[in-house]
Amino acid sequence: MRTVSYRLIHQDAHTAGRLGQLTTPHGVVDTPAFMPVGTGGVVKAMLPDEVASTGAQVVLGNTFHLMLRPGHKLVEQLGGLHKFSGWNRTILTDSGGFQVFSLAEFRTIAEEGVSFKSPYDGSAHLLSPEKSIEVQESLGTDIAMAFDECPPADATREYVVKSMDRTTRWLDRCIAARTKPERTSLFGIVQGGLHDDLRSQHAATLLERDLDGYAVGGVAIGESKEDMLRITRHTAALLPPEKPRYLMGVGLPEDLVAGVAAGIDMFDCVVPTRNARNGRLFTSEGVYIVRHAKHREDPRPIDPNCECPTCRQFSRAYVRHLWMTNEITVHRLTTMHNLWFFQRLMDRIRDAIRSDRLQALYEESRAWGRPAGSEVEENEAP
Amino acid sequence: MRTVSYRLIHQDAHTAGRLGQLTTPHGVVDTPAFMPVGTGGVVKAMLPDEVASTGAQVVLGNTFHLMLRPGHKLVEQLGGLHKFSGWNRTILTDSGGFQVFSLAEFRTIAEEGVSFKSPYDGSAHLLSPEKSIEVQESLGTDIAMAFDECPPADATREYVVKSMDRTTRWLDRCIAARTKPERTSLFGIVQGGLHDDLRSQHAATLLERDLDGYAVGGVAIGESKEDMLRITRHTAALLPPEKPRYLMGVGLPEDLVAGVAAGIDMFDCVVPTRNARNGRLFTSEGVYIVRHAKHREDPRPIDPNCECPTCRQFSRAYVRHLWMTNEITVHRLTTMHNLWFFQRLMDRIRDAIRSDRLQALYEESRAWGRPAGSEVEENEAP
Repeated sequence: MRTVSYRLIHQDAHTAGRLGQLTTPHGVVDTPAFMPVGTGGVVKAMLPDEVASTGAQVVLGNTFHLMLRPGHKLVEQLGGLHKFSGWNRTILTDSGGFQVFSLAEFRTIAEEGVSFKSPYDGSAHLLSPEKSIEVQESLGTDIAMAFDECPPADATREYVVKSMDRTTRWLDRCIAARTKPERTSLFGIVQGGLHDDLRSQHAATLLERDLDGYAVGGVAIGESKEDMLRITRHTAALLPPEKPRYLMGVGLPEDLVAGVAAGIDMFDCVVPTRNARNGRLFTSEGVYIVRHAKHREDPRPIDPNCECPTCRQFSRAYVRHLWMTNEITVHRLTTMHNLWFFQRLMDRIRDAIRSDRLQALYEESRAWGRPAGSEVEENEAP
Repeated sequence: MRTVSYRLIHQDAHTAGRLGQLTTPHGVVDTPAFMPVGTGGVVKAMLPDEVASTGAQVVLGNTFHLMLRPGHKLVEQLGGLHKFSGWNRTILTDSGGFQVFSLAEFRTIAEEGVSFKSPYDGSAHLLSPEKSIEVQESLGTDIAMAFDECPPADATREYVVKSMDRTTRWLDRCIAARTKPERTSLFGIVQGGLHDDLRSQHAATLLERDLDGYAVGGVAIGESKEDMLRITRHTAALLPPEKPRYLMGVGLPEDLVAGVAAGIDMFDCVVPTRNARNGRLFTSEGVYIVRHAKHREDPRPIDPNCECPTCRQFSRAYVRHLWMTNEITVHRLTTMHNLWFFQRLMDRIRDAIRSDRLQALYEESRAWGRPAGSEVEENEAP
């Protein structure tokens, strides 16, 4: 029996979309699933019960942030991240790799790992495969991610190959470093940049290892949507059907539908939470900007088709009033709405697969576009 | 039948403490009652259901803030403050007088009223007795406060007399300006500074009017605690037993006990909410500072004797972590705790009166003092 097991319930007839169920030490996750990001042990502005009330069954925690503040040993001493944060359902943690490459100061990449200074206090740290596993096991995560190198979107093929091979060596060190395989599962990350042949090669390499699931890494970092989907589709098709597949850092609603149609089971992104805190909401009628003057006297809910606590209780005028007067309560209302919207989208996606209608939803989603799109932020969490 | 009626349930045998019930168009308020401050149509960091879950049956709204943002006519158009803010229980609004004297820019006091400029956009406004009533009726408050002049604590006796007489004339204009007495009740405010004889004189003047309740105004503005309690005790004793009595802007836990023992039924103060946002919590063990390093690894709840959602779910270490990482969620946790603490204190006070033991609680409360007292802020909301 694996720590984390995946059960395929239904394969969509016309796309690579899969309906399934992931079972972890902290419960069942219906897939395809969207994971809200709880960077530092909290989904910003929310409490655990509220996140659960949206239907979320798994959240993502950030190894990089938690190892620095409050420190993984402290979290472990206090009973692990579930107990510390009050989130009793499944937790997936990233490896820290993405943040150490993008956020840390004075970072130095070497075969041993990445040396960096904390952006908080300047203290020196080394994040290595062994350290990443140590941190994730200390946090008591259900799903740990292998420590990988994620080259930039414009890296040369030569660099991508070098980096991919290092990622493989680091994966083997991660596997060797595990001390609690019965409690913390391990997903490997397929790299290979935008090159189909390298993706194939790296996927084959990963399949030789005993892993609990696979992620498509190195996408959603600045490449085109077409490239992202092409690589996702190509890579997902190489992965074994009995294991879950995770597309890291994706994305906008239309990207989720496209990702599922490409064969993905799990997603995480700061899109719903970060946009909420910037006053940008997802609705059945498109992007909604909280502060717009036209909402000043509007008694209607933000989204007339939404049943979230915000839309059930408060008017556009009230939410705008809280925004204009800098009331912190507004971040709760907007975050709740966006998380609700994303979970309802996942409901729709799962329903569509169940009845073999994902292709229709995919075609519809291509028109969602982004009417106020330039204002919607989709970058990864800092 | 009055819009707001007070029923005296039990008079404490040894103090002036009263157990009672206030009935308003939006429900029953058990007195003595503490009213959380919902300045701009929201108790900061909270949602209405949460405020109600602490046991609060009435909140205070600020006329000054709401008339400027979002504007009382807008609130009226959207169904009134109850509907706008989602708070379905009783609302008391202040008259705007206190804020216009302390916050407004370029204010000019004249017999007509107070001219001022909005601190938000510099726009010119006049707050007069008529305007204050208009705003409060537009908001649809259950209890409106008369527009008064509150002289500073160090005002001369001559100025206090002049100001008191103006407050009486303004009260008569408030009474004349009422258009919805069946929906919005009116409380008068006894002024008279720190002079017993002036307080007696002003109370007698007010008793000649038909008012739904009385407030002790012009205290908690910088005078000593002894003066505050002396004036409160003196004034409360002059007021009719069949009407509710409200001590404005008070206060710390020990002040609430002392105020009740002096004969007061209602209190409001930003103490619990503002201190919460500054990371200063009230507990059964004294003042608790969230950020203190000694809490870093502490798995215990903030107050082992507290049953609030924060103490039930989260450790000192976690709350401190959220504080140190600037997570806005922490303001919810601290505010919930402090509001809960204040409502449980009111439970204790009501229980003590019911069994004629308020004197013992009063004596105990005098020792509560403020171990970290200089850090506890008790100023009025801006």
